[in-house]
Amino acid sequence: MHNDTIAAIATPPGVGGVGVIRVSGSEAFELVLPLFKRPAGQSELPPSHKLTFGHIIDPHTQEVLDEVLVAFMYAPHTYTREHVVEIQGHGGPLILRRILHAVLAQGARMANPGEFTMRAFLNGRLDLAQAEAVMDLIGSETEAGQRLALQQLRGRLSDQIQQARHAILGVIARIEASIDFPEDDIPTPQPEELGPLISKAQKLVAALLAGSDQGRLYRQGVRTAIIGRPNVGKSSILNAFLRTERAIVTPIAGTTRDTVEEAANLRGVPLHLIDTAGITPTDDPVEQIGVQRSRAAAETADVILLVFDGSEPLAEQDRLVSAEVQAMGFGLQTNNKEGATSKRPVLLVLNKADREQKIEASELKKLWPDGEFISTSTFSDTGLQLLEDTLADIVLAGRMLHSESVLVTSARHQEALRRTNEQLQASFRSLEQHLPLDFVSIDLRAAYDALGEVTGETASEDLLDKIFSEFCIGK
Amino acid sequence: MHNDTIAAIATPPGVGGVGVIRVSGSEAFELVLPLFKRPAGQSELPPSHKLTFGHIIDPHTQEVLDEVLVAFMYAPHTYTREHVVEIQGHGGPLILRRILHAVLAQGARMANPGEFTMRAFLNGRLDLAQAEAVMDLIGSETEAGQRLALQQLRGRLSDQIQQARHAILGVIARIEASIDFPEDDIPTPQPEELGPLISKAQKLVAALLAGSDQGRLYRQGVRTAIIGRPNVGKSSILNAFLRTERAIVTPIAGTTRDTVEEAANLRGVPLHLIDTAGITPTDDPVEQIGVQRSRAAAETADVILLVFDGSEPLAEQDRLVSAEVQAMGFGLQTNNKEGATSKRPVLLVLNKADREQKIEASELKKLWPDGEFISTSTFSDTGLQLLEDTLADIVLAGRMLHSESVLVTSARHQEALRRTNEQLQASFRSLEQHLPLDFVSIDLRAAYDALGEVTGETASEDLLDKIFSEFCIGK
Repeated sequence: MHNDTIAAIATPPGVGGVGVIRVSGSEAFELVLPLFKRPAGQSELPPSHKLTFGHIIDPHTQEVLDEVLVAFMYAPHTYTREHVVEIQGHGGPLILRRILHAVLAQGARMANPGEFTMRAFLNGRLDLAQAEAVMDLIGSETEAGQRLALQQLRGRLSDQIQQARHAILGVIARIEASIDFPEDDIPTPQPEELGPLISKAQKLVAALLAGSDQGRLYRQGVRTAIIGRPNVGKSSILNAFLRTERAIVTPIAGTTRDTVEEAANLRGVPLHLIDTAGITPTDDPVEQIGVQRSRAAAETADVILLVFDGSEPLAEQDRLVSAEVQAMGFGLQTNNKEGATSKRPVLLVLNKADREQKIEASELKKLWPDGEFISTSTFSDTGLQLLEDTLADIVLAGRMLHSESVLVTSARHQEALRRTNEQLQASFRSLEQHLPLDFVSIDLRAAYDALGEVTGETASEDLLDKIFSEFCIGK
Repeated sequence: MHNDTIAAIATPPGVGGVGVIRVSGSEAFELVLPLFKRPAGQSELPPSHKLTFGHIIDPHTQEVLDEVLVAFMYAPHTYTREHVVEIQGHGGPLILRRILHAVLAQGARMANPGEFTMRAFLNGRLDLAQAEAVMDLIGSETEAGQRLALQQLRGRLSDQIQQARHAILGVIARIEASIDFPEDDIPTPQPEELGPLISKAQKLVAALLAGSDQGRLYRQGVRTAIIGRPNVGKSSILNAFLRTERAIVTPIAGTTRDTVEEAANLRGVPLHLIDTAGITPTDDPVEQIGVQRSRAAAETADVILLVFDGSEPLAEQDRLVSAEVQAMGFGLQTNNKEGATSKRPVLLVLNKADREQKIEASELKKLWPDGEFISTSTFSDTGLQLLEDTLADIVLAGRMLHSESVLVTSARHQEALRRTNEQLQASFRSLEQHLPLDFVSIDLRAAYDALGEVTGETASEDLLDKIFSEFCIGK
């Protein structure tokens, strides 16, 4: 199944100067050669990896489909470790599809999403964490996210996982040797001897877990909904945010046409700003749809910017919106002695600060008793930097990203590390309770396997399918 | 100016497996080498055109920006005939931009749209008609359009232009030799001798002109607006059209979100179907905008499908829409003895044929006295094939595209050929009137220069700038 030859368009869809089609598999050369016509009529294969000029033709009609550069790349020095052919044609969607169809007509199979990278994984070129980093890298929205993905791609995370696995395996080996070969007079290892060894592995795992919440931020970003009754200036706040940011990142794929969602860069964290229609009671069916969408955006947000118009008295609608936001489980961040609240944070924004302020502080106090309002004006450019700083403080909670940091960025890895941690703790408890070493060994084995899911040694075929199906076609 | 080193992202924008950055110019190798780090640490240049694995680094911080394949391609065996470096990175927009910025920071200049191809032209790799074919090829929406662009890229049009130019130059040479060197006893050429020679050139030009209307169709497509009062079934007609077409081409770039514009393939001609909001008098400002857009779409259309609802009596609004369409200069295609009318064609569609017909034929007759209505039902799938056939008959007027046809597809070429033709006719008239051969020679020289605009020998710098500025970046 993994030996058939696959093909796909590898460049982004759309119009550009160059488009690339990739073919990988044992028959890749034989399938492409009859389609490839060189001016001088040479028919032997060019040297490996050499971009060679010629034409792609329909082998039946001899019709020329495109002028191309083609590289034949010999296994194992390729991305998939299989024979790979790369065809560079003109970057038009129709041309690339026709070339791809010609390759498929020769007997190649259309590649599944992520199948090239899956083969790279199955053939041992990348482990699973590295393979996942490929997609993170392509999708990265900030330099920080890109740096973390590159470190993961280059095996920095995998190294640390393997160190921890190696430590665990050492303990398992010692225990199992004493159990399996009692006749060899191997002394039964003692708890005070095993404890520090397990502890060493646990420290590695704990260090990775400690940065994983932050790591996920850099990868997934923060969904921030701008909420308020109509005409308080929500769209202006969004636009001001985008303008004050130095590095506007690319528009988010899949953004619906009805909701305005923009991405900015909040100190390396992709900030997904969702501008919503005002939340207001309405009988108009079209407006109702807008209000519903605003509510849905608020409910799925990580942070809410709740905007009031300071130049008008507090309206009944302002009260309703505040109540809704509170009912959704958003609240103020109070850094009291018990630590931050577990509520999703809301930031209170008093907009239109350049005008005469008519809103009553006492009225606001009733709605948000401990609330601190950030006064902003998009007109006079007031308070916007403070708003950004406050948002950054809340999101990053003082954490900095060092250029050499290795952070776990994936929810899947975080979850596997949590299970590893639990199993290591369980093995500790078994040791402390002087249970038979078999029990300790079982816990350690489970920890070892859970860690192996990160790098793919112990990943099931279903898991692999799930992971690679989220890749794009052609990668 | 044309010797500095330029760089650009050459693949389409967006997310994909692979992205390509191109660098061209005499300094291309020196600029990229410090950014390119190979695992084995080799520092000499790899063989020309060889895709070589390594990393792109920031030369100041040594930070790795991406894992890449890089090919150094030596002049003159490159697209631009200059030294070219191609960097293949992961296909994420942020990564590619960072690599590009690193190349620019080394001293390359951001390439202008079409500048790589402009250099290919200036360095003699392509003539102007071939260079223009590159963009036609990338943008081609149908196989027919792609085939014509490829023929042009491969020089078939240029060959015919050069044949005609060569013929004209032969006549000029004969005339001028007799004028310039009278002492050499060269006999003055006679009109009956020159006439057939000019005629030969004119036949070549006339043949190219004859196919140029058809050629432009395949390149530009036909804008077809579906017009009618609200609820006559315009959108269903559009959808039926798209469904019945085998090869749906790509969505049109730049399609606004407010107008539904889809592209279909009408026997090789890109059919741009514009679904409009119903044209109706309205006080609602939002609806008014829709009606305005419908009018604008109708005014710029090549063909109108005017849709009526057969299941309802003719409404006052139907009359108004018909009157508007007629006022815009659309009319029935009457193939009477004087040939087709010069009005832009309108097709009359009587939709909802599956229901009881309540529209009065006599009423329709008043609106369109000679009109033939095509009865359709998108529900029972009636009349849709006839509608497509009729539209194809009108658009193609019986012309077929042969696989070997060389058609002029560009308005610019068509216009240059028209001027060539006029100048050749003028030279004929001068001959017939026995004017001094100087006059004939001036007309011929003008014809020769006009033809040269097609292939670029006589194109001004302004014209070149205009042509290449319409290219995409990175080509």
